[in-house]
Amino acid sequence: MAYIEPAPLLDKENPFEAMMSRFQTASQILGLEEEIYNVLKSPAKQVIVSLPVTMDDGSIKVFEGYRVIHSTILGPSKGGIRFDPHVNLDEVKALAAWMTWKCAVVDIPYGGGKGGVTCNPREMSAGEIERLMRSYTQAMMGVFGPDQDIPAPDMGTGPREMAWLMDQYSRNKGMTVPAVVTGKPIVMGGSLGRTEATGRGVMVSALAAMEKLKINPYKATCAVQGFGNVGSWAARLLAERGLKVVAVSDISGAYYNENGINIDAAIAYRDKNKGSLDGYAEVQKINGADLLTLPVDVLVPAATEDVITSSNAGKFKRS
Amino acid sequence: MAYIEPAPLLDKENPFEAMMSRFQTASQILGLEEEIYNVLKSPAKQVIVSLPVTMDDGSIKVFEGYRVIHSTILGPSKGGIRFDPHVNLDEVKALAAWMTWKCAVVDIPYGGGKGGVTCNPREMSAGEIERLMRSYTQAMMGVFGPDQDIPAPDMGTGPREMAWLMDQYSRNKGMTVPAVVTGKPIVMGGSLGRTEATGRGVMVSALAAMEKLKINPYKATCAVQGFGNVGSWAARLLAERGLKVVAVSDISGAYYNENGINIDAAIAYRDKNKGSLDGYAEVQKINGADLLTLPVDVLVPAATEDVITSSNAGKFKRS
Amino acid sequence: MAYIEPAPLLDKENPFEAMMSRFQTASQILGLEEEIYNVLKSPAKQVIVSLPVTMDDGSIKVFEGYRVIHSTILGPSKGGIRFDPHVNLDEVKALAAWMTWKCAVVDIPYGGGKGGVTCNPREMSAGEIERLMRSYTQAMMGVFGPDQDIPAPDMGTGPREMAWLMDQYSRNKGMTVPAVVTGKPIVMGGSLGRTEATGRGVMVSALAAMEKLKINPYKATCAVQGFGNVGSWAARLLAERGLKVVAVSDISGAYYNENGINIDAAIAYRDKNKGSLDGYAEVQKINGADLLTLPVDVLVPAATEDVITSSNAGKFKRS
Amino acid sequence: MAYIEPAPLLDKENPFEAMMSRFQTASQILGLEEEIYNVLKSPAKQVIVSLPVTMDDGSIKVFEGYRVIHSTILGPSKGGIRFDPHVNLDEVKALAAWMTWKCAVVDIPYGGGKGGVTCNPREMSAGEIERLMRSYTQAMMGVFGPDQDIPAPDMGTGPREMAWLMDQYSRNKGMTVPAVVTGKPIVMGGSLGRTEATGRGVMVSALAAMEKLKINPYKATCAVQGFGNVGSWAARLLAERGLKVVAVSDISGAYYNENGINIDAAIAYRDKNKGSLDGYAEVQKINGADLLTLPVDVLVPAATEDVITSSNAGKFKRS
Amino acid sequence: MAYIEPAPLLDKENPFEAMMSRFQTASQILGLEEEIYNVLKSPAKQVIVSLPVTMDDGSIKVFEGYRVIHSTILGPSKGGIRFDPHVNLDEVKALAAWMTWKCAVVDIPYGGGKGGVTCNPREMSAGEIERLMRSYTQAMMGVFGPDQDIPAPDMGTGPREMAWLMDQYSRNKGMTVPAVVTGKPIVMGGSLGRTEATGRGVMVSALAAMEKLKINPYKATCAVQGFGNVGSWAARLLAERGLKVVAVSDISGAYYNENGINIDAAIAYRDKNKGSLDGYAEVQKINGADLLTLPVDVLVPAATEDVITSSNAGKFKRS
Amino acid sequence: MAYIEPAPLLDKENPFEAMMSRFQTASQILGLEEEIYNVLKSPAKQVIVSLPVTMDDGSIKVFEGYRVIHSTILGPSKGGIRFDPHVNLDEVKALAAWMTWKCAVVDIPYGGGKGGVTCNPREMSAGEIERLMRSYTQAMMGVFGPDQDIPAPDMGTGPREMAWLMDQYSRNKGMTVPAVVTGKPIVMGGSLGRTEATGRGVMVSALAAMEKLKINPYKATCAVQGFGNVGSWAARLLAERGLKVVAVSDISGAYYNENGINIDAAIAYRDKNKGSLDGYAEVQKINGADLLTLPVDVLVPAATEDVITSSNAGKFKRS
Repeated sequence: MAYIEPAPLLDKENPFEAMMSRFQTASQILGLEEEIYNVLKSPAKQVIVSLPVTMDDGSIKVFEGYRVIHSTILGPSKGGIRFDPHVNLDEVKALAAWMTWKCAVVDIPYGGGKGGVTCNPREMSAGEIERLMRSYTQAMMGVFGPDQDIPAPDMGTGPREMAWLMDQYSRNKGMTVPAVVTGKPIVMGGSLGRTEATGRGVMVSALAAMEKLKINPYKATCAVQGFGNVGSWAARLLAERGLKVVAVSDISGAYYNENGINIDAAIAYRDKNKGSLDGYAEVQKINGADLLTLPVDVLVPAATEDVITSSNAGKFKRS
Repeated sequence: MAYIEPAPLLDKENPFEAMMSRFQTASQILGLEEEIYNVLKSPAKQVIVSLPVTMDDGSIKVFEGYRVIHSTILGPSKGGIRFDPHVNLDEVKALAAWMTWKCAVVDIPYGGGKGGVTCNPREMSAGEIERLMRSYTQAMMGVFGPDQDIPAPDMGTGPREMAWLMDQYSRNKGMTVPAVVTGKPIVMGGSLGRTEATGRGVMVSALAAMEKLKINPYKATCAVQGFGNVGSWAARLLAERGLKVVAVSDISGAYYNENGINIDAAIAYRDKNKGSLDGYAEVQKINGADLLTLPVDVLVPAATEDVITSSNAGKFKRS
Repeated sequence: MAYIEPAPLLDKENPFEAMMSRFQTASQILGLEEEIYNVLKSPAKQVIVSLPVTMDDGSIKVFEGYRVIHSTILGPSKGGIRFDPHVNLDEVKALAAWMTWKCAVVDIPYGGGKGGVTCNPREMSAGEIERLMRSYTQAMMGVFGPDQDIPAPDMGTGPREMAWLMDQYSRNKGMTVPAVVTGKPIVMGGSLGRTEATGRGVMVSALAAMEKLKINPYKATCAVQGFGNVGSWAARLLAERGLKVVAVSDISGAYYNENGINIDAAIAYRDKNKGSLDGYAEVQKINGADLLTLPVDVLVPAATEDVITSSNAGKFKRS
Repeated sequence: MAYIEPAPLLDKENPFEAMMSRFQTASQILGLEEEIYNVLKSPAKQVIVSLPVTMDDGSIKVFEGYRVIHSTILGPSKGGIRFDPHVNLDEVKALAAWMTWKCAVVDIPYGGGKGGVTCNPREMSAGEIERLMRSYTQAMMGVFGPDQDIPAPDMGTGPREMAWLMDQYSRNKGMTVPAVVTGKPIVMGGSLGRTEATGRGVMVSALAAMEKLKINPYKATCAVQGFGNVGSWAARLLAERGLKVVAVSDISGAYYNENGINIDAAIAYRDKNKGSLDGYAEVQKINGADLLTLPVDVLVPAATEDVITSSNAGKFKRS
Repeated sequence: MAYIEPAPLLDKENPFEAMMSRFQTASQILGLEEEIYNVLKSPAKQVIVSLPVTMDDGSIKVFEGYRVIHSTILGPSKGGIRFDPHVNLDEVKALAAWMTWKCAVVDIPYGGGKGGVTCNPREMSAGEIERLMRSYTQAMMGVFGPDQDIPAPDMGTGPREMAWLMDQYSRNKGMTVPAVVTGKPIVMGGSLGRTEATGRGVMVSALAAMEKLKINPYKATCAVQGFGNVGSWAARLLAERGLKVVAVSDISGAYYNENGINIDAAIAYRDKNKGSLDGYAEVQKINGADLLTLPVDVLVPAATEDVITSSNAGKFKRS
Repeated sequence: MAYIEPAPLLDKENPFEAMMSRFQTASQILGLEEEIYNVLKSPAKQVIVSLPVTMDDGSIKVFEGYRVIHSTILGPSKGGIRFDPHVNLDEVKALAAWMTWKCAVVDIPYGGGKGGVTCNPREMSAGEIERLMRSYTQAMMGVFGPDQDIPAPDMGTGPREMAWLMDQYSRNKGMTVPAVVTGKPIVMGGSLGRTEATGRGVMVSALAAMEKLKINPYKATCAVQGFGNVGSWAARLLAERGLKVVAVSDISGAYYNENGINIDAAIAYRDKNKGSLDGYAEVQKINGADLLTLPVDVLVPAATEDVITSSNAGKFKRS
C-alpha cells in the first residue's frame, strides 16, 4: 500500500465535511471503487419532521426532528437520538455515517443511522420532553423498527426517553416491541453493562494501543479529561488494569496526584458532591488546560469533542 | 379588515422565502392564530433519498430525490414530481406549501406535497429515466399512497413517468393501484381533460377577474406569452369565450395581429412546425419583450415564472 | 300470522333485558329459526379496556371503556360512543343490538355496535376528555375501522370528540382516515344535515304514522316534551309540515299556547337565554307532567327514555 | 417494614375478589403507589366473543368465549385457555392477574393473560371441540400473537387443542407460527419437560421451604393429595430427593404406608388400572379426608383448589 | 388491413390451444408487436393448491384447486370459479385469457382470471361443498382481493358458494369484505340483474349484429338451443325486441312453432315441470339436431360449447 | 415389519414419478395411513409465473418461473432455486418433495419447497440474470418469507443470485431481511461452512455406512467420480478421516494412484489449471467409465445424478 497523504485536520469544522474528508482518505487507502464511494457518500434516507407539542403553559411549540439512515447494507441502521439546541441536518448526517463506519469496522450486522430534535431539554419539564419524544416517535413510525432502524440514547436523552419511545412505538404497533430501541431501562429489557460501555471501550482501545506500542500498563501513567460517565468509568477501569491515573478533571478544574488518584474514592466523592470533584482532598488542583500537556503515557480526552487540534497536537508529552 | 402592507415583491427570490412572505401577509389578513401559523409554516415531513441508478453505459450514478409533505390536515397530500437539474429542497418545500394553499382555497379534501429529483432528463435515455423513476418510487413506498400522498406530473415528467411510478408501486404492493398517482395515461385510468386543465384554469380565473372588473369578454383583447401546453390552451379557450387574442409568443419570438389571431390555425401550424410558431403567416412578428407591454385587457404570462417583477410591473398597459 | 302476546312492558328495566324481551316478541312474529335467534341474541364481540389517563392535576385516573359489536353480518358495525357516569356493559350491549335492528330495518349495509366510557365529562376539562378519547381510541385500534366498526357521537360526545378519535386513529395508521367515524366536524369531512337528523327522523315517522291513521297534518295538534336538539328540530319540522305545536317543555317547565307556538321564535329565545325557555312570552306555563296528557294528535317524548310506562300509558288523550 | 394484617382467608370466594384481597395485602407490604395500584387492579383488556359452532347432529350451538389480558407491561401476556362449564369472566380476570404476578415474581419478560370457553368438553366429540377451538382462535386473531398474547393449555385443554389453535392461527396468517402457543405437541415444536413441569415446581418450592425451615429432606415425610399429573410427578420427584411419601390419594380414596410408598410402582399400577389407584397393594387404604391431617412434614394438596380453609387450617399436624 | 387467413377451426380442441389460435389471428389483424404478444400469451400467474377436506363419512379426500391470473394490466383480474370433474390447468388457463380479452374489448378496468376445483359437486353434500370452498378460499387468500383478483360463480358454483367464499375471506381479514367476490346473494351485497345478465348479453350482441346486417328484428325469426338460464332469458329478451322465436330446445328435445313460441308461457311451464319442456303444448316436437339447421335469421347456441363445428357450419340456413 | 418389495429402479425416469415410487415404498414400510399418504403425495401449493425481462439488446424475453411448496407441516418450506433450460414443473415438484423428506428425516423444523426458472444462465449476461432473478423474486413476494418459504442456491444459481434475491425482497419489504434466503454471501449474513457442506455430508454418510458395515476407514480405499465442489471436498474430508483415495475423475478423464492421491495437491493443481485435473502428475490416467468399477470400499458418484443404474449396478466391486 502506497503512502497516502492524510486528510488535513480540520478544527471546529462542519461535522459532515469533517467526516467526509476522513472517509475520502480511508477510501483512497482502501482503493475503494468510485461507484461504491459515490453510493456511500450520500445517506440512503433523510427524514425531517415538524413536531407540534403542547407545552405546560398550554401553548403549542413546533420542534424540528431528524432521522438520517446512512446505510442499511449490512443490516438495520443503528444510532442515537440527540436532543440538543444545536442539532441540525449536517451534524446528524455526519454522525449517521460514523455509525456505518463503526459497525462495519467491528463487523456487527448493522448499518448506520442517527436522529435528533432541535430543542433544549434542560429548559423543558419532564412532561414536555415526554410529549416531544412521543410525537417524534409517532412521526418516525415508518422509519424505526427492529429490522429497519434501531435508535439509542445520545446527548440529551437516556433510558427514560428510550422507555417513552418504546412505549409509544409499542402502542402504535399494538404489542410490546422491546427490540425497537437499545439503551432502555434494564427492567424493560435493557442490556446490562450499558452504563460503563463507553468507558470500557476507552479502556479496551487504550490497552490495545499500549500493547502495540509495548507500554506496560503496570508502569504507565494516565490523565483523564472529563469525569462524567465516560471519563470516570475509563479512569476506574484503566486503574483496575494497573495504570496510575495521575490526573482527572471536570468543569470545576483539574486535579493531580503524582502517586495516583484513588478513582473509586473520587467517584464516591463526586456522587455526594452534586457531581463535582470540587474540594476533593488527596489531590492538588491544577489548571484545567495543563492536564492535556502533562507528561503521561495515556491521555484520555473524555470531556468534549475536538479537543486535540492542529494548534495543540504538538505540545503533548510522553512521560 | 384593516389595511395590511403587502409583502414586498421579491424578484428571483428563494422560492421558500417568497412563499413564506406571501403566507405571512395572508396570515395577517386572516388574523391567523400564531400557533396555527407556526404549525403551517413548517412542512409536516421532508424525505430526502439517495438513488443509485445503473446508466446505459454500465456505470452507476447517484441521484438525490425529495418528497415534501407540507400538510395532510384536510386529506392526503397532493403534488407533482419535478425532474430538473435545479431541483433542491427549498424549492420543493415552497411548492409543497403552495399545493396546501391551492387545495384549501378551492375546498377539495387534499393537503399539499411536492417531490423532485435533481437530474437532467433531457440528457438521459428513456431507460435511464425509467430506472430512476422506479428507484425513486421504491424509496418512497412508505410515503406515497392513495390515502397518504398522491403524486402527479410536473416539470420534466409526464404520463409516461407516472405509468412507471404506478407500475412500480403496484408491483411492490402486489396489486394494481391506479389511485396512487394522477396524470397517468388515460388507458391506465388517467382522467380525461387533464391536458387542457391548466389552460382551462387560466381561462376560468381570467373570466372571473373580468367579471369582477366588469370587463366584457366579447370586447376584450388578450396577449399570451408562451405557446406551449398552458399558453395555447389558454389562448384557445379564451378565444372561445369571445376575447380577441392579439398576440402570442414562443421561444422564436412574438406574433401580433390587431384583428385577433386564429388560435386553432396557429396551434395546427405549430404542431406541424416542430412546435414552433416561427414563420406563421397572418401575423406580424414583434419583439418578444414588447408583448408584455401591449395595451391589452388580459395578459397571460404562460412561459415561465417570475416574469412580472418590480422593474416591469409599472409598464403594463390597459387597452 | 297468529296473534302473539306482546312482551310485557318493563319500566326502568335492565336495558339488555328490555331489548331482549322486544327481540323475543319480534322473533316469534317473524317465525325466526331458533338457531338464528341464538346467534343474534349474543353480541359477536365485547371488548372492555382499562384506560389510565393523566388528569390536569398530574394524577393518573383509570377509566373503564367498552365497545360491543353486536353483529357485522350485513356490513361493518355502526354505533355511537357514550361518555357518561352510568355507562355499563349491559347498557352498551342493549344499545349495540338496537343498532343492528335499526340498520337492518331500514336496509342499509351496516351491522350494529356501541361503545362507551364510564366517566363524567361534565366534570372534566377539555384536555382530560381529549386524553381519555385518544387513549380509548388507541385501545380500540383493532376494533375500529372503515370496513370493520365505525363509531359516532352519542350521549356526552360530539363532533369535537369524533375529531380527536379520527386524528388519533389516523396518526396510528399513518394516513388520514376520515371514514373511520361519522359525526365529525363538517370541515373534516363530516356529513351535512347531521344536526337535525334525529329530529327529522321524528318528523318523518310521525307523518308516516299519521298517514296510516288518516290524520291530516294541517289539522293536527302536537305536544313536544324536551326542547334540546331533538325536540326543537322535531317541533320546527313538524310545524313546517302543518302541525300546530301547542306545547313544548324543557327542564324549566312546560309551555302551552292553544293557537300554536312559533317554534322559530322559541328556538331563537332559547339560544339567547342560556338554552332555557324560562320566561318565554306568548305562551302559558303549565305543569311539566301535564304536557304528557294534553289532548293532542301527536305526542313527541324527546326529553329522556322510558317516559311512557305502564302507569301512564292509559292516560294519554287524543284531541 | 411494619407489620401488616393479612387479607382475611376467604373460602369458596369469588375468585376475582380473592385475588384482589391478596393483591391489596401485597401492595401494602410493597408500599405500592396508589396510581400503580389502580392501574394494576384493572385488566388491560377483556374480550368476550360469541362462537356459533355446528354440532355433530347438524344443529348450531352458540358458546361464549373469553380472553383477558391483565398486563403486558413486562412483555407479551401469557396464560392458559380453560374449557369448562363453570368458566366466567370473573374467574378468567382473576386467573389472568395471577399470571401477571407469577411471571413478575420469577422475573421472566411476560405479562399475564387467561382465556376460556363456557362449555363441557367431556360431553363433546373431538370434532365439536376442534370446531369450537378453531372458531375461538379465529375470533381472537387480533388478540393472540407471539409478541402480543401467547395461550397455553389449562383445565379441559391440552396439546391436541393447542395444535388446533396453532394450525388455525397459522392458516389465517398464511405461515407456520409455532410461537403463538405453548403446550403444543413436541413434534410441532412443543417444549420438552412440560408434562412434569407443574409437579417439578411443587418439588422445587417444597425443597426451598424445607431449606428455610431447616428440615432435612432425607428425614422428612410427605403426604400427597391427588395422583393425577401434578400429584404423581410431585410425589415421584420429592421421593427422588429423599422424602418418604407415606400417603397418596385419588378419587378412589387415600393410601397409606408408614414405610413410604414406592411411587414409580404406584404410577405404573395407576397407568394399567384406568388411572385409578384402587386395589393397589403394598398400601393401607384410609379415609380420604384423613390424609390432610396426617402428621407429616410436607403436605401436597394437588387435587383441587381451596382445600385448605379457615375451618381445617388449624387441624394440620407436623410429624 | 390486408386479408388474414383465419385460424383453422378446431373441434373439441384443447381449450388453451383453441384460445391461442384465435388470439394469434387477432394479433396478426391488430399488428400486435411480437413482444406484447409474448407477454400476453403467458398467464401472469398460475396457482395450484392441494385441498384436504373432511368428508361427511369422516374420511379425508384431497382435491386439487386452481387459480390462473392471466393479466392485471388493466386492473384487478376478474373471473369465475368452476367446480367440475373435468377442470384442469389448460382449461383454466384458456378461460382466464378469455376473461382478459372480454374485459379489454368492452373497456372495463379489469384483467382476466379464472379458477376451478376438480370435483363433482353433484355427488357432494352441501357441507362437503362448503368445506371445500372454504378450504380453497383459505389457500387463495394471497391471490384474491378487491384490488387484486375478484372471483365469480361459474359452472358448478353459484350465489351460495360465493357467500361461503366471502364469509371465509372476511373472517380471515377480520372484517366484512363484500367487494372480494361478485355473484353473491343480493342480501349480502350482490348486484341486481345478474341472473339475466348472460341472456341479456346474447340479446344485445344479436341485435347489434342484426343492425349491422340490416335485419329488421320485427321481421326476424330465431331458434334457441338450450332452455336453461341463458337460453330462456335470451329467448324472452329477443322476443321482447320483436323477434319471432320459432324453436327452442332442452335435454328433452326441440320444440317448434312457425308462428312463434310464447316464451313467458314456456318458461312458466318449465318451472312447474321440473325444469323440462317435455310435454309443453302449443308446439311441435322436432329432432334436437334439426333445430340447428332450421332456416332462421338468428340461431342462439345456448346449450353447451363447441356446437358449431367445421362439419356442420356449412349446413346452417338463413330464413 | 414384513419384507416389502422395493420400488423398481427407474433409469432416466420422470423425476416426479421416480420420487413417488420411492415414497410409496417408504409409506408401505412405515404403514402410513392412506389419508396421510394422500395429503403428502400432493404438493401443498404450486406457483407458476411469467417473467418478462429486458435483455441487453433491448428486446423483451418472457421466461417461466416455478415455486412449489410441497409441505409446511413441520415448519417453513426450504429448498433451492434452479436456473436451467430443462427446468419444468414435474422436476420442481419432485425436488420439493425430496426436501420435505430430507428435512423430516434429519428432524429439523422445516418443510420442503423448490423453485426454478426455465432459462440458460450460461448464455445470459450478469445483468440479464440479475433482472431475471429480481423479476422472479418480485413475482414470488407472497410465497417467500423467513417464516413461510426460504430459498437457497441450486443448479445455475449461487451466492450472487441469492444476494440479488435478498436485496429485492428487502427493498420490497422496506427493510433488510437476511433470513429470507440461505446460501447468500458470508458478508451479507451467509453461513460459514456452506461451501464444503455437501461434500462433508458425503463424508459423514460414508463413515456412518462404513461403521455399520464394520469397514475400518484407515484400511479402506475410495474412488470419487467428479472433482467439482462436492467431489473434491468429499475426497479431501474422506482422506482426512484416513481413507486412501485411489481414483478421482473430472470431465478431462479419470486419474488413478494405487498408493492414494494427495487430494490437497490435486485441488491446488486444479485451481491453477482452469478447474481441470488434465495433466496432473503423480497419477495414472485411466478411462473415465472404468473408475466406477474399480475394486474400492467406497465409491462416490459426485459428478451427476442417475449414474448407478440397473445396467451397471451389478458390475461394482468391493476391494
